[in-house]
Amino acid sequence: MEIVLYSSFFVGILALIFACIKAITIKAASAGNKKMIEIAQDIRDGSIAFLKREYKLLLLFIIIITILLVIFNFNDPILMLQGSAFAFGAICSGTAGFFGMMIATLTNVRTTNAACKSLGNALKIAFDGGTVVGMSVVGIGVLGLSFLFLLYSKIIGLHSSNNVDKILTIVSGFSMGASLIALFARVGGGIYTKAADIGADLVGKLEQGIPEDDRRNPAVIADNVGDNVGDVAGMGADLFESYIGAIISSMIIGSSMSISIIIDGKIVSEYTLLFIYFPLVIAAIGVVASILGTFCVKINKEQNLQFALNLGSYLSTIMMLLGSVIAIYLLIPQSFNILNNNIIYNKWGLLGSISSGLIAGIGVGLITEYYCSKGRTPVLGIVKAASTGSATTIISGISVGMRSTAIPILLIVITTIISNYLAGLYGIAIAALGMLSTTGIQLSVDAYGPIADNAGGIAEMSGLSSQVRHRTDKLDAIGNTTAAIGKGFAICSAALTAFALFSAYQTKISSSLNYNNNFVIDITRPHVMAGVLLGAMLPFLFSAMAMDAVGKAAFSMIKEVRRQFKEIKGLLDGSVKADYARCVDISAVSALKEMFIPGLLAVLFPILIGFIDASGLMLGGLLVGVISSGVLMAIFMSNSGGAWDNAKKQIEEEDFNNNISKNSERYNAAVTADTVGDPFKDTAGPSLNILIKLVTIIALLIVPIITKYGLHIFDK
Amino acid sequence: MEIVLYSSFFVGILALIFACIKAITIKAASAGNKKMIEIAQDIRDGSIAFLKREYKLLLLFIIIITILLVIFNFNDPILMLQGSAFAFGAICSGTAGFFGMMIATLTNVRTTNAACKSLGNALKIAFDGGTVVGMSVVGIGVLGLSFLFLLYSKIIGLHSSNNVDKILTIVSGFSMGASLIALFARVGGGIYTKAADIGADLVGKLEQGIPEDDRRNPAVIADNVGDNVGDVAGMGADLFESYIGAIISSMIIGSSMSISIIIDGKIVSEYTLLFIYFPLVIAAIGVVASILGTFCVKINKEQNLQFALNLGSYLSTIMMLLGSVIAIYLLIPQSFNILNNNIIYNKWGLLGSISSGLIAGIGVGLITEYYCSKGRTPVLGIVKAASTGSATTIISGISVGMRSTAIPILLIVITTIISNYLAGLYGIAIAALGMLSTTGIQLSVDAYGPIADNAGGIAEMSGLSSQVRHRTDKLDAIGNTTAAIGKGFAICSAALTAFALFSAYQTKISSSLNYNNNFVIDITRPHVMAGVLLGAMLPFLFSAMAMDAVGKAAFSMIKEVRRQFKEIKGLLDGSVKADYARCVDISAVSALKEMFIPGLLAVLFPILIGFIDASGLMLGGLLVGVISSGVLMAIFMSNSGGAWDNAKKQIEEEDFNNNISKNSERYNAAVTADTVGDPFKDTAGPSLNILIKLVTIIALLIVPIITKYGLHIFDK
Repeated sequence: MEIVLYSSFFVGILALIFACIKAITIKAASAGNKKMIEIAQDIRDGSIAFLKREYKLLLLFIIIITILLVIFNFNDPILMLQGSAFAFGAICSGTAGFFGMMIATLTNVRTTNAACKSLGNALKIAFDGGTVVGMSVVGIGVLGLSFLFLLYSKIIGLHSSNNVDKILTIVSGFSMGASLIALFARVGGGIYTKAADIGADLVGKLEQGIPEDDRRNPAVIADNVGDNVGDVAGMGADLFESYIGAIISSMIIGSSMSISIIIDGKIVSEYTLLFIYFPLVIAAIGVVASILGTFCVKINKEQNLQFALNLGSYLSTIMMLLGSVIAIYLLIPQSFNILNNNIIYNKWGLLGSISSGLIAGIGVGLITEYYCSKGRTPVLGIVKAASTGSATTIISGISVGMRSTAIPILLIVITTIISNYLAGLYGIAIAALGMLSTTGIQLSVDAYGPIADNAGGIAEMSGLSSQVRHRTDKLDAIGNTTAAIGKGFAICSAALTAFALFSAYQTKISSSLNYNNNFVIDITRPHVMAGVLLGAMLPFLFSAMAMDAVGKAAFSMIKEVRRQFKEIKGLLDGSVKADYARCVDISAVSALKEMFIPGLLAVLFPILIGFIDASGLMLGGLLVGVISSGVLMAIFMSNSGGAWDNAKKQIEEEDFNNNISKNSERYNAAVTADTVGDPFKDTAGPSLNILIKLVTIIALLIVPIITKYGLHIFDK
Repeated sequence: MEIVLYSSFFVGILALIFACIKAITIKAASAGNKKMIEIAQDIRDGSIAFLKREYKLLLLFIIIITILLVIFNFNDPILMLQGSAFAFGAICSGTAGFFGMMIATLTNVRTTNAACKSLGNALKIAFDGGTVVGMSVVGIGVLGLSFLFLLYSKIIGLHSSNNVDKILTIVSGFSMGASLIALFARVGGGIYTKAADIGADLVGKLEQGIPEDDRRNPAVIADNVGDNVGDVAGMGADLFESYIGAIISSMIIGSSMSISIIIDGKIVSEYTLLFIYFPLVIAAIGVVASILGTFCVKINKEQNLQFALNLGSYLSTIMMLLGSVIAIYLLIPQSFNILNNNIIYNKWGLLGSISSGLIAGIGVGLITEYYCSKGRTPVLGIVKAASTGSATTIISGISVGMRSTAIPILLIVITTIISNYLAGLYGIAIAALGMLSTTGIQLSVDAYGPIADNAGGIAEMSGLSSQVRHRTDKLDAIGNTTAAIGKGFAICSAALTAFALFSAYQTKISSSLNYNNNFVIDITRPHVMAGVLLGAMLPFLFSAMAMDAVGKAAFSMIKEVRRQFKEIKGLLDGSVKADYARCVDISAVSALKEMFIPGLLAVLFPILIGFIDASGLMLGGLLVGVISSGVLMAIFMSNSGGAWDNAKKQIEEEDFNNNISKNSERYNAAVTADTVGDPFKDTAGPSLNILIKLVTIIALLIVPIITKYGLHIFDK
């Protein structure tokens, strides 16, 4: 069986080699004229400076938590290794984010330069940049995880189920490390990018009436830096976390599955490591499918760009399914069951779970697209509301976001029920993993977006012809559909992964307290319900903090931009250069200062509740609350933000076609709404996906500690 | 024991007599000059016309549900009476709302007239009007409920616990009737008032730059009608529902309590009706305390108005507590326990529960006040954000609302845990009831607000001196603090009542399916978690519908107001009268059309889920989801709206003091934010409190039906 671990290890290396080759090709491409190179260098320097500062701060945090994990597990030398897994996970996540950002800041200007020639060339290089981000994330993920598992299995040995459980407990540290970095990277990057964006938009577009990405705007470099640290590094860490979370939760649940052999009409369970390895196999197949998928993104005609990207994603998905069929056929026994449970599942149930997950993910993606796309009813409704001012625009967008929660929730619920029916809790975890197995190509398309966005900024700032800008705008628009599907996958899989981890939590408490699998979290008990309420409150408080942070940071930015416009003579006519560096600095300082409290809240709150009630019931309630309200708030906030963004774009287009000067009343209303949507969709919303899983994984990790040291005030 | 029922019956009559006397006094006061009377008549006619139309539509709905309740309970002739209780509850709620609205539309103009003389006179009459609303709500509530209980106990007899359970099941129909009407009245009234308000503000204030309540504004009468149908009739029905819900849930849980007698060291439970009657006693004491409290609202000096109102509320609360001490001393045995459960509670635990409920309610009220009041940090933050435009104002207000959920949730959680510790689930129900027992005086203060608001409108429209307007504005401001506390009580008690009803649901399912009290709703089962997610989604979908409805209605209103300003020559210089009636009509038609779908959603969704899973588990999960996300969304939306409202007022004041013309940039930003807040705080937010309880009570009522006719797809 060990060959499975080695294969996924090598698949990880393969992905990284592939990423390196792509990176070398990108670097070899021309970066354009001197002005372009200079601007790109400014953006790159700003991005690197921010990430360095961020990582320095996080390092401190990682060291503290590692030490705490070692101390609390002091009486079990094996579990003390958890700290190392945690630190390793954090470092892997940071590396993936940093690597992605480095490549993105190389690719942006080369995309601009390629766009001078043709749209096809520009798409190719931008997508290559995205591919490097995507492949390094999945490569580091699969490689790191298989390495860790191999290492610990050599140290500890796989000869008893107790040892295997310990290894899995240790490995979940890896997941927590990834989640923690992801949360900070998302929140920090999100604050940075939105403070800069709001500052640039409100003062530049609305007050001074200059176009987006205009060089005269002092916040313009900070805005472009934000795309890299928020949308590339932040999103990379985010998807790394989801990906790892899905694999590890499947492995943990897999440890309670066994092969069913029927002897004389009686079911006999046979212990196996198979279901622990299987998730790694699925992940590895997904990586290979993603690599193959990128080769399918071929551009023949300019018109077919959208089709080319979609083709890559869809073909990867199909290859993934075919690979799963083969893997299930070869590896999984005819029937299996959960230890101590007599329900027998058929091997093909796993394929059903993977498929139901994929279908739900695509479904959520399409619904997301419907609610957020130009030309569809919801966005048209917002556009109509814009004609009566910004208040109605905002009300209508909030309502679109809230309404858009219904069908995704329904799809998540149906997937949960179907995959549970087909393969129990393991099925739910595998459904989430199936959805995320093609993260490689998904993220390639996702990361391609901010690269194209940056490319447009550079085109504008270096004063290239409007045709170049037009091409980069087109590139940017193309990624949107596929990105929407990616978002659907992220939310859907977060919910399913959290369910799976939650069940793992229950199993863990049950065995920690010797409940013999009879541990139930009865929701009608008052302190469980209290936990639910507190948990449901967490995403609200967290979002408030994240938005406040954006507000505060944006406020300093607005003041600075206004000051520069007022004090620097000749700025508006373009004769004097703005003080970009100061704006970059303001964003960075605010973002780093503000990201800590929400981050600490996410870490400390579940620990506190766990200690208050050592029976694990209140913490169980907390998880339910966090998951349910977190998923809803995430969908609501992301979609409201997305819908406003596209309503603004739609008006921009309509106004342009009707030759209306850019700042029409209704356009201003839409810009205001879009500004409200910025922290919704790029700071608070996506952080909630991570929050859900971080809280769940923390709960899982602290089980042995709280059952030992916690209070028992509700036991009677 | 029957004397208890008769006493509360007579207390109900007493409250109504008191209300009638006050009403007669009000009617006798002078209504001012011809112009004032004419304007007031317009408002009154508009309000009556709307309520008549609304009730006609609801009547149809009530008839259908009554018939359905009779049909579904066809095999149990006793339970068929449930339909009658439902209809009676609906009618009582409608009557309370209508009566309150009739009085409010008499009082408004008389308050204006009194304000011509002095502030004290105006406060007196406005508060008298509020008192009529408050006393009729609690009077009809207590009277109706005791009448119903007396009637059914005569018909069915109280000689077996089975009969008592049936009576309680029937009586819960009364609660459902009240909830249903409340939901429609809140949503319908909320849509009406906000459509008119937004239409009047956006076009009048922002576009035409004319002051609030200016006669030239075509939507001005509709706006004032809205205060009456939304804030008086809607809120009356809302509090009627909360009040009844708290009493009935305590009665239901009381039916599972028994007196503990210790014989030879063993606990022997003795069956009793005492704990069923006790909630009625508490309610009756609260009514008496409220009546006495109104006498304490005495105005000596103009400065002490706020103090006078607060004194009334606080003294009522203290009298209520004293009354409770006496009632517990006289009625409750030394110790009691839950049937089939050996935990013994002390009688004074009930006093602890009531007190903890009251403290939490006041605490939530004070926190609400902190987050929404002028001059406090949160509102000052919004004011500061207003200087950078409406986008930052809105972000900051949303963040205030979300942040404001934390402490109220904490207080609710602590109360739940304490009152459960002191007296089990019965303690939780009694805590909620304790909070609401002084609804009489609370509502008097609440209803006084819109009356003062209307009085100001009439002053403005009839061109009275600015001093009169200044006085009515002051009146309006005074009610805010006390109203904030009232809001805290409403949210807090909704959560606790829902908990209590939820436990009643569990007991009911347990006995319906013969689980022998071993029925647990284990949250880790996938379909329970699916139920939680679906439940958590409901408040989002419902809010979206309610806000969309406001948006649509406001859109027609804005168009109409704009049309009138454009087409009616001489409207702006005041020489030609606007077509008020058309605006009144547009609001009414839109409100009635739009309130149905969200209402139906609330009724049908739990029924559907109940039928899908006859084991009651998924529906149980649904309740948890609805309660947790509903409470949070309610707090968030109400407080964001309240904070924006006061940020606007604060800027208004500051600008006025600094002699800045009314429409400063920052003021406009605040008006925009306040407009966004309107459907938050007056339509969606308060409806969610009702939604929570409506869904829970429906779940409770359909238990016998779903366990008989429902599907069993998740049983394995």
